[in-house]
Amino acid sequence: MPFIDRATLDFLLYDWLIADALTRQARFAEHSRETFDAVLDLSARLGDEHFAPHYKRSDRVEPRLDGEAVRVLPEIKAALDIYAKAGLFAASFDQTLGGAQIPILIHTASTAMTMAANIATAAYPMLTVANARLLATFGTPAQIEILARPQIEGRWFGTMCLSEPQAGSSLGDITTRAIADGEDIALGPRYRLFGNKMWISGGDQDASENIVHLVLAKVLGEDGRLGAGLAGISLFAVPKLLPAADGGLGEANDVVVAGLNHKMGYRGTANCLLAFGEGTRHRPAGAAGAIGFRIGEVGQGLAIMFRMMNEARIAVGVGAAALACRGYRHALDYARERTQGRPVNARKDSAPTPIIVHPDVRRMLLTQKVYAEGALALVLYCARLVDEEAVAASDAERDATGQLLGLLTPVGKSWPAEFGLAANDLAIQIHGGYGYTRDFDVEQVYRDNRLNPIHEGTYGIQAIDLVGRKILRSNGDALALLGERIDATLVACGDELSDECAALRAAWAEVEETVAMLRAAGAEKALHNASAFLSAFGHVVVAWLWLDQARASADKVTMRETRRHACRYFFATELPKARQQFAFVRSGNDMAASFPDACL
Amino acid sequence: MPFIDRATLDFLLYDWLIADALTRQARFAEHSRETFDAVLDLSARLGDEHFAPHYKRSDRVEPRLDGEAVRVLPEIKAALDIYAKAGLFAASFDQTLGGAQIPILIHTASTAMTMAANIATAAYPMLTVANARLLATFGTPAQIEILARPQIEGRWFGTMCLSEPQAGSSLGDITTRAIADGEDIALGPRYRLFGNKMWISGGDQDASENIVHLVLAKVLGEDGRLGAGLAGISLFAVPKLLPAADGGLGEANDVVVAGLNHKMGYRGTANCLLAFGEGTRHRPAGAAGAIGFRIGEVGQGLAIMFRMMNEARIAVGVGAAALACRGYRHALDYARERTQGRPVNARKDSAPTPIIVHPDVRRMLLTQKVYAEGALALVLYCARLVDEEAVAASDAERDATGQLLGLLTPVGKSWPAEFGLAANDLAIQIHGGYGYTRDFDVEQVYRDNRLNPIHEGTYGIQAIDLVGRKILRSNGDALALLGERIDATLVACGDELSDECAALRAAWAEVEETVAMLRAAGAEKALHNASAFLSAFGHVVVAWLWLDQARASADKVTMRETRRHACRYFFATELPKARQQFAFVRSGNDMAASFPDACL
Repeated sequence: MPFIDRATLDFLLYDWLIADALTRQARFAEHSRETFDAVLDLSARLGDEHFAPHYKRSDRVEPRLDGEAVRVLPEIKAALDIYAKAGLFAASFDQTLGGAQIPILIHTASTAMTMAANIATAAYPMLTVANARLLATFGTPAQIEILARPQIEGRWFGTMCLSEPQAGSSLGDITTRAIADGEDIALGPRYRLFGNKMWISGGDQDASENIVHLVLAKVLGEDGRLGAGLAGISLFAVPKLLPAADGGLGEANDVVVAGLNHKMGYRGTANCLLAFGEGTRHRPAGAAGAIGFRIGEVGQGLAIMFRMMNEARIAVGVGAAALACRGYRHALDYARERTQGRPVNARKDSAPTPIIVHPDVRRMLLTQKVYAEGALALVLYCARLVDEEAVAASDAERDATGQLLGLLTPVGKSWPAEFGLAANDLAIQIHGGYGYTRDFDVEQVYRDNRLNPIHEGTYGIQAIDLVGRKILRSNGDALALLGERIDATLVACGDELSDECAALRAAWAEVEETVAMLRAAGAEKALHNASAFLSAFGHVVVAWLWLDQARASADKVTMRETRRHACRYFFATELPKARQQFAFVRSGNDMAASFPDACL
Repeated sequence: MPFIDRATLDFLLYDWLIADALTRQARFAEHSRETFDAVLDLSARLGDEHFAPHYKRSDRVEPRLDGEAVRVLPEIKAALDIYAKAGLFAASFDQTLGGAQIPILIHTASTAMTMAANIATAAYPMLTVANARLLATFGTPAQIEILARPQIEGRWFGTMCLSEPQAGSSLGDITTRAIADGEDIALGPRYRLFGNKMWISGGDQDASENIVHLVLAKVLGEDGRLGAGLAGISLFAVPKLLPAADGGLGEANDVVVAGLNHKMGYRGTANCLLAFGEGTRHRPAGAAGAIGFRIGEVGQGLAIMFRMMNEARIAVGVGAAALACRGYRHALDYARERTQGRPVNARKDSAPTPIIVHPDVRRMLLTQKVYAEGALALVLYCARLVDEEAVAASDAERDATGQLLGLLTPVGKSWPAEFGLAANDLAIQIHGGYGYTRDFDVEQVYRDNRLNPIHEGTYGIQAIDLVGRKILRSNGDALALLGERIDATLVACGDELSDECAALRAAWAEVEETVAMLRAAGAEKALHNASAFLSAFGHVVVAWLWLDQARASADKVTMRETRRHACRYFFATELPKARQQFAFVRSGNDMAASFPDACL
């Protein structure tokens, strides 16, 4: 059985986000609910049959370095071969690229199911699809044909190479350098790259025919030196094996695995330190230096990479939501089966009851439910915005949708990571001692999910992105757009759910009041409590999405009741936490910044 | 370097809890600050030199079942042999039992240091000491001599056997049965035990000469049947190897390891499913049935076991606090060394700064500090109460101190577990990607600590103990005593720290108001939100202890400043969370209990 409840997913896609309406757009006109359902059915089945069965084994048998090659569990390759044959790498790409042109919304629901089944295995296609989409967007026709198409077919996999050992959050400090090396007849401006890249998921593996690394590096200035900060950062496609003139695979590029990272979880995804341009093992075309083909213009690397990064950030949120759903499913099943104790007023000699009757167990289940399904709703909403942006009727509409998506991206990455993890913690707790053993899945689910507040920009970096870039350094349009959408929900509620409507209205007023205070405080002080703002802002956004779900009509009475009860629970137990955090942010407390170092 | 800052520990013990004053009591008259310091120095050294070095290895190389014996890492035995030779198993026992009669307060500080160095190795003496103390309190002279003394010497280790596969939190449902089997000439009433015990830490190992299992079992009623609920539950000492008449070790008892649990963390502590009385491998005195010697009277098992359980619960809090301190130390060291990024207004070409300058990193450090040191203060305060109880001048004083300790025990177990774990999560986050790898210690520290909200009574069970037994089913004396101690702190603050005093006064008023509401609601409803009450109540207690530390004079100016800054930080960032939770509890929200099953 899939770990994400299908009835819930169907509600979110069709009753709430009205996925069918997308088929009225030219881009999706060949689709219908039937074709969407076919993708979802397929994803559920592949998750169950090919991703989930090696979940434990891919944790136990980690990727290993065998000579210079990384070997991953054969089951990972087997699952991804089937995933590729089923067309799921290609599903969201244009038909001209061999894709099925399904909406990102459906693609996201599809990946949520395989991620819930085995997030480490699902990470390979996630990165590959994002890599290929960047190339499809910014590459030349030849770059797309030669580098993106094999990824869309699932034959090659892709990576993103940003961090270096000394530069993770601070990309201005990267030192990988790119030296111009002429022009490739097909792939355009050619460079030689030298430097180390850290935390490269899928940096090497033996599950695909080839790997396309998308690498940020600094093009040397005219003075032969690296520029400071973000100056000169450009993007390069660095294939592991260089494409040969005949369309096949040519010689090995100068990229070697300098080490494998041994992680707390998420272990099936090989995570590497890669050395570019050492010239020790491979000297393509007779010289040291990893051959890379520039994508876009010099100095545009970060801007272009953010296309992939933003997709990856939402994907992190999708994974976190998927793991939260999985943990909830395990906990719910366990709570229904495990007997222990009896209600307070029961006879002492009565049979023990399933623990689901105990109020504290129900609290832990419900909290997981509102976190997990709230996170899922949030990332699906973001995915819907990607589709809205793609089919916007005007530039103004496209720009507005893009701004709203930009505002919600750090939330869509971080809220599921923070609260999905909290949900997984509760899933362990419901299992008691059993949850702490590796005989059950929940401890692994927790360990897998623990990566999500870290990679693709830590929680703190997302908070700075939200408060600094998306709010303070913007014209305020995005926030206003969000306010309008919230208003629309409040209007649609009419006389129903009036307590929740009032609470959301008050919470939004607090958002606006807090933002005004932050603007007045100036950038430096405003960022002091950015993490608290992100957490609280995320709660308001998710509260809104719960209210909007409760407002939506559902086919089934039980589903409608479920959305309403869960919405009320979120408003009663969670939203007050946000209001307390906003009050803290508005207090301008700078104790953390001003605490004397000697007292730490 | 020890993972618990020694200057902080010295402040807590001497400046705050005035440990030296205990030497004015007859029981501790032979001690002085010098002898206390000698124990602390020794513990710090043993932790550094013998516990910490195999920390990673004891995680990687788990205990394994070799035939019928469990083998643990040889370094564990080596460390504990040295610990025994140093007299640290014995330190807190009476001189008549070969002990050094040090206060429990000093013993607790000592164990905190070895637990911080390697909690899984330190768990063996923790259980052994608690086991021996139970025997020393409730055993006959012969039972003490034969069963407790070898544990006090550290030659035998002890376990506590309560849970069964089908009965964890609900001990009334245990089915292990004890059948009378005559009288042992030395050890008294002898029984044969039959049944399975689950989650037995140290259930088998090859680090000690013998093991004393303290086992809860039901004595068969006169009708030959097990009683329902808690009726007939009695306590038995079941040695792994039966003591021989000559004082040596005799034949093997009928106890076999039916399985080892493979845990998320805390792996060095062998955790077993034990089968008693299978009669397949060992038939002591020619018959099946594990031979056990009754400790105390029939039906008194649980009451006696709670002596060990309460000590173990505080010890869980000590371990959680120790791990929180360790994670904080790692995070602080990393934040001072790791360079990344620069302050908002710095030049882009300036050198990257240590991350400790970033406000969000400082927030994560400070939060860890107030959690870790708040937890340490809490458990040391509880330990001080154990000493106060032991040297009380009157029965009334002893009773009052015991009641206060009883009220604080679920808090001393749970608050460090909940917030120590939250601290360890932040320690990972500060390390970024590195914190997620097994090359650093913080992910293991987190995994080790994750056990603490589960074992020795889950968080939910502690919440029921606090709200049900310790508050609603009490005469209110304990809460009143706590209120008096809080008042004493407020009086001692005089005109200083007036904002914090006012906030604590208001928070205590909320405690009283909430308790009044819970009393009015009746037992069943009062327990619905017991976990939220426990968390919030713990925050008020720890806020009080921070204020009391800030009030205490310290030898060193920096330490005094540190206590004051940290106190203010806790009051500003944490205490408001408690008030929000109390408001929720008082709302009588029963959504979790009443949420329709079909909607889960």
